[in-house]
Amino acid sequence: MKIAFLGLGRMGRAIAKVLLEAGFELTLWNRSPASLEALVDAGGKLAKSPAEAVKRADVVVSMLADDRALREVMLEGGALEAMRRDAIHVNMATVSVPFAATLAKLHAKLGQGYVAAPVLGRPEVAERGELNLLVAGPPVQVEAVWPLLKAASVRIWPIGDVPEQANVVKIGANFMLGVAIESLAEATSLAEAHGIEAAEFIEVVTQTLFAAPAYQGYGALIKARAFEPAGFSLRLGHKDIGLALSAADQARVPLPLAAAVNARMLDGLANGDGDKDWSSLYEVAARQAHLDRRGS
Amino acid sequence: MKIAFLGLGRMGRAIAKVLLEAGFELTLWNRSPASLEALVDAGGKLAKSPAEAVKRADVVVSMLADDRALREVMLEGGALEAMRRDAIHVNMATVSVPFAATLAKLHAKLGQGYVAAPVLGRPEVAERGELNLLVAGPPVQVEAVWPLLKAASVRIWPIGDVPEQANVVKIGANFMLGVAIESLAEATSLAEAHGIEAAEFIEVVTQTLFAAPAYQGYGALIKARAFEPAGFSLRLGHKDIGLALSAADQARVPLPLAAAVNARMLDGLANGDGDKDWSSLYEVAARQAHLDRRGS
Amino acid sequence: MKIAFLGLGRMGRAIAKVLLEAGFELTLWNRSPASLEALVDAGGKLAKSPAEAVKRADVVVSMLADDRALREVMLEGGALEAMRRDAIHVNMATVSVPFAATLAKLHAKLGQGYVAAPVLGRPEVAERGELNLLVAGPPVQVEAVWPLLKAASVRIWPIGDVPEQANVVKIGANFMLGVAIESLAEATSLAEAHGIEAAEFIEVVTQTLFAAPAYQGYGALIKARAFEPAGFSLRLGHKDIGLALSAADQARVPLPLAAAVNARMLDGLANGDGDKDWSSLYEVAARQAHLDRRGS
Amino acid sequence: MKIAFLGLGRMGRAIAKVLLEAGFELTLWNRSPASLEALVDAGGKLAKSPAEAVKRADVVVSMLADDRALREVMLEGGALEAMRRDAIHVNMATVSVPFAATLAKLHAKLGQGYVAAPVLGRPEVAERGELNLLVAGPPVQVEAVWPLLKAASVRIWPIGDVPEQANVVKIGANFMLGVAIESLAEATSLAEAHGIEAAEFIEVVTQTLFAAPAYQGYGALIKARAFEPAGFSLRLGHKDIGLALSAADQARVPLPLAAAVNARMLDGLANGDGDKDWSSLYEVAARQAHLDRRGS
Repeated sequence: MKIAFLGLGRMGRAIAKVLLEAGFELTLWNRSPASLEALVDAGGKLAKSPAEAVKRADVVVSMLADDRALREVMLEGGALEAMRRDAIHVNMATVSVPFAATLAKLHAKLGQGYVAAPVLGRPEVAERGELNLLVAGPPVQVEAVWPLLKAASVRIWPIGDVPEQANVVKIGANFMLGVAIESLAEATSLAEAHGIEAAEFIEVVTQTLFAAPAYQGYGALIKARAFEPAGFSLRLGHKDIGLALSAADQARVPLPLAAAVNARMLDGLANGDGDKDWSSLYEVAARQAHLDRRGS
Repeated sequence: MKIAFLGLGRMGRAIAKVLLEAGFELTLWNRSPASLEALVDAGGKLAKSPAEAVKRADVVVSMLADDRALREVMLEGGALEAMRRDAIHVNMATVSVPFAATLAKLHAKLGQGYVAAPVLGRPEVAERGELNLLVAGPPVQVEAVWPLLKAASVRIWPIGDVPEQANVVKIGANFMLGVAIESLAEATSLAEAHGIEAAEFIEVVTQTLFAAPAYQGYGALIKARAFEPAGFSLRLGHKDIGLALSAADQARVPLPLAAAVNARMLDGLANGDGDKDWSSLYEVAARQAHLDRRGS
Repeated sequence: MKIAFLGLGRMGRAIAKVLLEAGFELTLWNRSPASLEALVDAGGKLAKSPAEAVKRADVVVSMLADDRALREVMLEGGALEAMRRDAIHVNMATVSVPFAATLAKLHAKLGQGYVAAPVLGRPEVAERGELNLLVAGPPVQVEAVWPLLKAASVRIWPIGDVPEQANVVKIGANFMLGVAIESLAEATSLAEAHGIEAAEFIEVVTQTLFAAPAYQGYGALIKARAFEPAGFSLRLGHKDIGLALSAADQARVPLPLAAAVNARMLDGLANGDGDKDWSSLYEVAARQAHLDRRGS
Repeated sequence: MKIAFLGLGRMGRAIAKVLLEAGFELTLWNRSPASLEALVDAGGKLAKSPAEAVKRADVVVSMLADDRALREVMLEGGALEAMRRDAIHVNMATVSVPFAATLAKLHAKLGQGYVAAPVLGRPEVAERGELNLLVAGPPVQVEAVWPLLKAASVRIWPIGDVPEQANVVKIGANFMLGVAIESLAEATSLAEAHGIEAAEFIEVVTQTLFAAPAYQGYGALIKARAFEPAGFSLRLGHKDIGLALSAADQARVPLPLAAAVNARMLDGLANGDGDKDWSSLYEVAARQAHLDRRGS
């Protein structure tokens, strides 16, 4: 199976590495070609443009930042046109629900396939091939790319035949994660305002009711106030809450928690913290409660 | 150690049972004396009034529903006056921050002790003696009641010298739990509005990012729409979110998520669902999204 | 008609003055007796305690700060007990719905009357006898105090027989006012972030869609950033939003806007701005949007 | 001055009528050509396409429903290309901030002008030539179209040189209007839950603190529960709150009230009420408080 891989940021590189190690043949393209040596050493070939990368591929995997980047590469950049008529596009990034639907249609018009396969997990997890994949698309296409999906993941969650539904699940899960962080930030600021140490509060809740990796990981960052470098940036977190709010507007579903988290994120972004980890929502909570004005 | 135990609802009975089995001598009082046979069979003695129950006790344990019930029993009911001057009151219920502070002062005036020991865990957990206890109070008093606390719990979390701080931690933890449920309710309704089965969405998120007992337990209730009988009722959940909002108002801490959850709970309460489990927040989400109007 | 007037802050003094000028006989009591000379010069008599003030009065008018002050004066201070059995208490302050109901019952038990008459209007308006009064209570009692109410107001709005319903209307109106201020604060911060002068935006909206005294008055304060001295303080505004949220919790009515305004007020209070005018909500909006970080 | 007028819904027809009466020469185009007889009788000429309508015009006025309609007509429909190189486009509709900026750039590239002139006022007001216009654009262009703007309005509010800033002001004003309606809906539902008639509450507040046309107009609709036909539909109101939230996201400004109103609107839209007046937010409030379950 010849694979073209478009978009080699930290997550993309991790997955591409795993695929090369599993024996797949990869042609690579990234906007900035820097730091692809390791992949080339592992057998990957570099292409000079998206169109060149995809033209002979059986499967095109994309892991691009957002709707806009994907549009630039696939539509304006010509990759969609350049793909073979029987090739399948596996999109592993989180994109908006309507754009996923649009892409699926454009591919179908050209006789191409489109499978949505957004990932749950961080780059470290991807490097071990232990991502969870949310997969949706026409069964025959999903089956065709199954070996590739299997190689990249610890588990595949089939979501159904309609590609954008995988995006909805991913968007819903990320929304819940943003809310979990914000709830930890709010509760910690409440505890501190009542004279309890942040570290003490976080330890109690993340070892009892919330003894789960997500809470423990973000709790540790808040305890240590270690918001840089970002594991997942506030800017991307805001993008994902925005996708949830858009998907909710489109389907007419009130999401009061998403709206509340979004407003707090804007305080952080306005403060210039877009590149910090999204657990820096704690700093917004501390600032709005003016914890620094309180005696020790 | 002679113990008076006031308040024998489901949680109170579970703890009293464990204490009797551990060899403590218990005098019991409950507003409605029904269903205390098992405890009497296990060696507990019944008292006819709170005052009678406490008068010879070294330690008075209370597990009453809310501030009002506690006020009626301890103040208006005369239990505080009737306690020995060297006795210690261990309050295991979730009460408001100012009322905890008030009680501590009143006991101190009479030379009595006051230790806050709110619990994390459900009645089934209490029956196995596996609660987590959040304990705060003057060290010498905490030490004096330690054997009792130890018998009732799997782990004791010392929070410090100021009793009401244990209540703040408990209130913060419960607020986070309410938010977790609401986020699951919102995300599930979003998924359903996009044509994804509730059960499918819940399975994916509670086996990946949110593989934690709290999410899995409430997720199972939502999947099964099994909101009655309540494990923890919407009415009590609303009381606890109210305690968080009060503690936040008192200490001037904005809690936008708590405010959002509270508004959704009021929809449920207004619909007459106060006795359902608080995971029935899902029903509020489904109603406000009018999921029943959508084609299948 | 002999009147006892309890509570002579700025609003109380304004109303008392108008009543004296209308020929009523007034006995005055205030916690701090300072600055009552003008009223004494106008014919008012000073009493040394609430009980002394009320003992010969046909009507007791109260204008105290909040539930607690009223409780201290009427219940703990003994004024209720000291009132004649056929006297009527006219409460012009904004109190909570349950406390208004409680007071009505206590008075009725002693054969006394209770009429709620909260005011709409600021002290300047009260000085001209031009308040709007929201009046509720048993018709025969309302009729008995009508001349007094008429003297103090430009218009009386009868709300019905149940005293606390007048408080609900007053609380609802003040909630709407808090929301109007917050909406002006948010919209102005949005305009500024897009490079439009605050003064320009405020002028346009308060001379077109919102050409109403409330918007124009608060708009002028925001334009001038003139938040001190307060016409109505953020602390009192927060008390009133709290009364709305309590009334809503009691009656199970979701009020998402009140919850949002409350969270913003807490940011202001935590910043130490309780004594500023409540239009300083603009400062909260500007701070959360970090307008000061933006180039001019 | 030869004018092309694109978009003749109720508001567009009202303005076109006024311009014809003021002696301007108009070429008209509307997607559906129905109900333009009155305008033709008054001297307007019909065009078969946007391109045909604009090709000889000095000024092109557009009053189209939203970004998408404007894009279809101006870009995909070829009107922009067909305009003379020295013509000026006066856009009187409410469009998004980024699209206004994009349009301004596209026109400038072709040597054409672009003036934003969104309106404040309803169709009845427009028919009397009494709109308020918010006008922004390069001074020389604004001056050139001044006679036209003057004929259509009671007052012109110059907002500055940057066209999209006029849209920001309009979006801010409409956001405030949506909040005002929602606050009236919430407060009225609170009053009703406490046993007060909706009509009584609305009368008191709209004749005292909120004696302004906006509150009185929407208050009357709520009192009469007269939500159809819509003066301004919930669907359009939701579009406008969405524009406010987008403008806020873009400029990083938290708008908690807008987020709260948006969530309530989604309940209404999900219930199938998009074509009702946006004061039907009252029905959402009544439904979430389950007022129909309460005794009369």
